[in-house]
Amino acid sequence: MAVREGIRCGGRSARIQAEVHKAVKEMQAEAGRDEITVPAIAARAGVTPSTIYRRWGTLAELLADVAVERLRPIADPADTGSTQGDVEAWIEQYVDETASDVGKALLRDIFANAAGTNNPIQCCNFTRETLEVIRDRGVARGEAPLDIDEILDIVIAPIMYRILFQNTPPTAEECRKLLARVRSLPSLDTQMKSASLSA
Amino acid sequence: MAVREGIRCGGRSARIQAEVHKAVKEMQAEAGRDEITVPAIAARAGVTPSTIYRRWGTLAELLADVAVERLRPIADPADTGSTQGDVEAWIEQYVDETASDVGKALLRDIFANAAGTNNPIQCCNFTRETLEVIRDRGVARGEAPLDIDEILDIVIAPIMYRILFQNTPPTAEECRKLLARVRSLPSLDTQMKSASLSA
Repeated sequence: MAVREGIRCGGRSARIQAEVHKAVKEMQAEAGRDEITVPAIAARAGVTPSTIYRRWGTLAELLADVAVERLRPIADPADTGSTQGDVEAWIEQYVDETASDVGKALLRDIFANAAGTNNPIQCCNFTRETLEVIRDRGVARGEAPLDIDEILDIVIAPIMYRILFQNTPPTAEECRKLLARVRSLPSLDTQMKSASLSA
Repeated sequence: MAVREGIRCGGRSARIQAEVHKAVKEMQAEAGRDEITVPAIAARAGVTPSTIYRRWGTLAELLADVAVERLRPIADPADTGSTQGDVEAWIEQYVDETASDVGKALLRDIFANAAGTNNPIQCCNFTRETLEVIRDRGVARGEAPLDIDEILDIVIAPIMYRILFQNTPPTAEECRKLLARVRSLPSLDTQMKSASLSA
């Protein structure tokens, strides 16, 4: 009985979440940020404002929750045949998405309500999971494993710093220079060499 | 006459800014974030709420403005006698301050209202100006010039990424590892070698 009740609640709860998220996304596409209020979201989602306050606490928490969901990858990174090719292709897409107006607005929503939440960590985990797919695919091809922490430090971190703090996202050429720094590291040397030999 | 008027307005305007900033800082030290409202700040600063709205627009803009001022360096970085020593000492302090609860709250205030502002860029400029002091001091000593963009990419960016997205600020040992990556770059090689030879 407890289990059934749980399932029923979960179903209703999941439907409410889906409707409210959908309402927020539609309003973000149509309205200015100032027009997005809890009563307006509730009206569009067909729930009461108190349902939203009970579940998310504040508008900021709801917007951060929606932002995390929108940053969740919807597909595996492209398989180009080599670790280096996979990383390069994915980095290009990552910069485009993160540096877009929508991408920057999602990051703002996440940091505006970051205190005591795991939302920023969740963003990093999405990046990590994508890199794990690339690493594991490379290992299955016989390449040396990609060092994910080094990619985060040497490539992802400066991309994010330039977008957030310098408002100058790196060009494709600058991304290749960042990746070249990784290539010179001993742990990636073998793999990158084998990738360039096979290219 | 126009000039005088400008000066008089500037003086009054600067006093209002100082009083309002002081009120915000006192309330941040005492009250929870939810209790900091424009009417409460206005009452403490001895101005009307409309003065604050006219000048800053929203509470978020005011908090971001205060945050930028609080992140402005108040002193030159310590002079340890070598570029490498100066960078190491300053990085340790930078991590401590940025990863503190206060530091993270200031960054949140800045990003919560980053759209259309230069506030995040101003943060990066503070870092850049500090590194310029260290670079110029090194050059005056006869050391090769510090490559500031490389320090931003290789050391500052991963520190910020770890604090913002991983909630695990680097340890002193990890900071030294990040700095060691800079040392291996040709452009910094000479300077770092001369620094370690003179140590």
